[in-house]
Amino acid sequence: MTDKSSTGNPGDVNAEKAPAITRRDAIVAAGAALLATGVPLLGQTTVPPSPGIPPDPTKVQGRVPTDLGQRSSFEKPRRFVFRALPSGESGTPLQDLRGIVTPSDLHFERHHGGIPAIDPTNYTLLIHGMCERPLKFSLDDLKRFPSVSRIHFIECSGNGVGLGPRTDRKQTPQQTDGLLSTSEWTGVPLALLFKEVGISPDAKWFLAEGSDAARMTRSIPVEKAFDDAMIAYSQNGEAIRPEQGYPARLLLPGWEGNSNVKWIQRIEIGDAPWMTREETSKYTDPLANGTARQFSFVMDCKSLITFPAYPNFVSPGWWDVTGLAWSGRGKVARVEVSTDRGRSWEDAELQAPVLSKCTTRFRYLWKYAGGEAHLMSRATDETGYVQPTHAELVAARGPGTLYHHNDIRCWKVESDGHVFFDTEL
Amino acid sequence: MTDKSSTGNPGDVNAEKAPAITRRDAIVAAGAALLATGVPLLGQTTVPPSPGIPPDPTKVQGRVPTDLGQRSSFEKPRRFVFRALPSGESGTPLQDLRGIVTPSDLHFERHHGGIPAIDPTNYTLLIHGMCERPLKFSLDDLKRFPSVSRIHFIECSGNGVGLGPRTDRKQTPQQTDGLLSTSEWTGVPLALLFKEVGISPDAKWFLAEGSDAARMTRSIPVEKAFDDAMIAYSQNGEAIRPEQGYPARLLLPGWEGNSNVKWIQRIEIGDAPWMTREETSKYTDPLANGTARQFSFVMDCKSLITFPAYPNFVSPGWWDVTGLAWSGRGKVARVEVSTDRGRSWEDAELQAPVLSKCTTRFRYLWKYAGGEAHLMSRATDETGYVQPTHAELVAARGPGTLYHHNDIRCWKVESDGHVFFDTEL
Repeated sequence: MTDKSSTGNPGDVNAEKAPAITRRDAIVAAGAALLATGVPLLGQTTVPPSPGIPPDPTKVQGRVPTDLGQRSSFEKPRRFVFRALPSGESGTPLQDLRGIVTPSDLHFERHHGGIPAIDPTNYTLLIHGMCERPLKFSLDDLKRFPSVSRIHFIECSGNGVGLGPRTDRKQTPQQTDGLLSTSEWTGVPLALLFKEVGISPDAKWFLAEGSDAARMTRSIPVEKAFDDAMIAYSQNGEAIRPEQGYPARLLLPGWEGNSNVKWIQRIEIGDAPWMTREETSKYTDPLANGTARQFSFVMDCKSLITFPAYPNFVSPGWWDVTGLAWSGRGKVARVEVSTDRGRSWEDAELQAPVLSKCTTRFRYLWKYAGGEAHLMSRATDETGYVQPTHAELVAARGPGTLYHHNDIRCWKVESDGHVFFDTEL
Repeated sequence: MTDKSSTGNPGDVNAEKAPAITRRDAIVAAGAALLATGVPLLGQTTVPPSPGIPPDPTKVQGRVPTDLGQRSSFEKPRRFVFRALPSGESGTPLQDLRGIVTPSDLHFERHHGGIPAIDPTNYTLLIHGMCERPLKFSLDDLKRFPSVSRIHFIECSGNGVGLGPRTDRKQTPQQTDGLLSTSEWTGVPLALLFKEVGISPDAKWFLAEGSDAARMTRSIPVEKAFDDAMIAYSQNGEAIRPEQGYPARLLLPGWEGNSNVKWIQRIEIGDAPWMTREETSKYTDPLANGTARQFSFVMDCKSLITFPAYPNFVSPGWWDVTGLAWSGRGKVARVEVSTDRGRSWEDAELQAPVLSKCTTRFRYLWKYAGGEAHLMSRATDETGYVQPTHAELVAARGPGTLYHHNDIRCWKVESDGHVFFDTEL
């Protein structure tokens, strides 16, 4: 801030009451106060103005309203593109986000045949199979039904570092677990559509088919439709984004991302699973005894510290450790934080609202004394399920599992204050 | 959807179970079923493919992941620019949005000197006046404090049609009440900063000053700082947008938008209000007796039906009437809907989560019998305050008030099913 008198401000008629303080006074005073609380005064050096930025914005008329907003040119949040292929993926910059909502253009992507281009006026959803009257719904038809809006996370079941050696310590939260995002979803309850077609009382499963080039296809138990499944057409208020299934997708709150079939074009009702490629050769969890978990839909309770993390640096003092916790089984009941690699744990604070099958922001005020530290978080959901350690997960499932890595992560603070992903956990 | 066999789908191994249905079968069946529920089958005519859109997206490899998402080219939600001037405004397309969250690039704008361009590395917030140690905080300093995230609405106190004749019946919800948006805000509680500077026990008011060309300046009671005020630097997860105060703004949950000073650069602590232009010549409510309400900060309980509204058309049958309700005093406790211009009322359903000082989505399933109808909504908050009628508002405040128009709105359905803003209410 440049120094200025307050005479230019028509509202500031009582400005003479303000004690005359100089910039230097403020900095010295700040130093004294912050010493007491452990918060160092950062960024107080004078920075030259950026090109195109007025040194004093109060002296320059600003930009006029526009029909669509833009980010500040100083802010460039970006997804991390793991693979720029039709069967590709990009991750949400978890370390850059606050709260729980993910801006729609930063929602993670995962698709097996690329993002299809779909004209919504040509879009239809066919529901057929074990029902009285097969129906084809246009997008307008779907929007005509009573709708429901809910804030839920979606997480790719492959999210998270592998269970093998974790050799790269230079990984950000976006790189380790960025296939996780949270949106307010709006759509028609699938139960309403199933009633509309007169679903058979003998129906037990349905097949959901996408209209992408992979024609993503998954078998889903009918119970989920009568619980909380919806055909969603809206994300954070507006139309679903192309990467998230425009113009409509299946939403199965709390279930692995892959089963939330995007660009959904067909639902077939039956009495047994279809045994598609995506539930036989993929999206199963091999177990130590040679068998495999199949239809492991629910995303187990998990948490992740998003700050501090690689590549942050911490100096001795107080730090607001924060992160996200979530469970596909319901609400997060508790998050504990350890700073000594799991030897001792303390409760973190949960930020309201704590919603079912939704990310919950947690915070823990940590006094870093310097030296080496290991930061871990452990979440418990309302069913009592506790996020496991890496060793517990391997013991339960064996070493070959590619999915559902909800084990505890660890950030190692080196003795010089630099933070890395702990590859030794 | 084009007809296709399911042989191309590697997962669809049980496709032979599907009854062979033709497109015609589906339409005929659909017609029969929808007659029973009152939902007509819309949009089932064949539409020619759009340029660049494949007739069958399953046959074409889709787009690969990118670091930033884009809307579908078929979706163009836009703010409505009421005035493209530095003292201008643009409104949120309420009729196009579902749920409660407003995408950040559609958040309404209101500023008196345009949107300033600010380099965040040069940004500072000075807090001085009646305190032990005046301090200047950089953006990094602010982010170092423990933060809080909450979902709140912001509404311009001038939102809503004037109290005079409402001559234009061709107004959308965006045009009548679009200066209302809801975001998840993150920032540092102002109480923490006031403790940091050692606020005087005799302090009663503080002055908040923006760094825009209008140098927006408002006096705020200190109680609000120790209640729920924050210096917000994040909106829907990411950095606050320039139009909403980048890099930091005052957030006073539930209070009139103007007092939530954007681009905040200075807070002066005192023991009396400063009587700035924005709280004397503006943002006061003249009363019938010649006096005026001053410092009328709280946004009273209000609601608005966003569908159906102008320019919608409804045919006889069931419709999902929906809208938003909100109160600056706390949670919305009840929303009633009238379809007969207020003669009778029925409870609408409130969509969870119902959060304090936040918009709440409501829904009411309405069987439109045809003919003329008048749709109104009436909200009650948890304090028992009931949204007033236009007549009640005028009786309480007289005809001259420019702000705080929370009176009940009405959408008139003409006998031909076309919906207009009711100018006669």
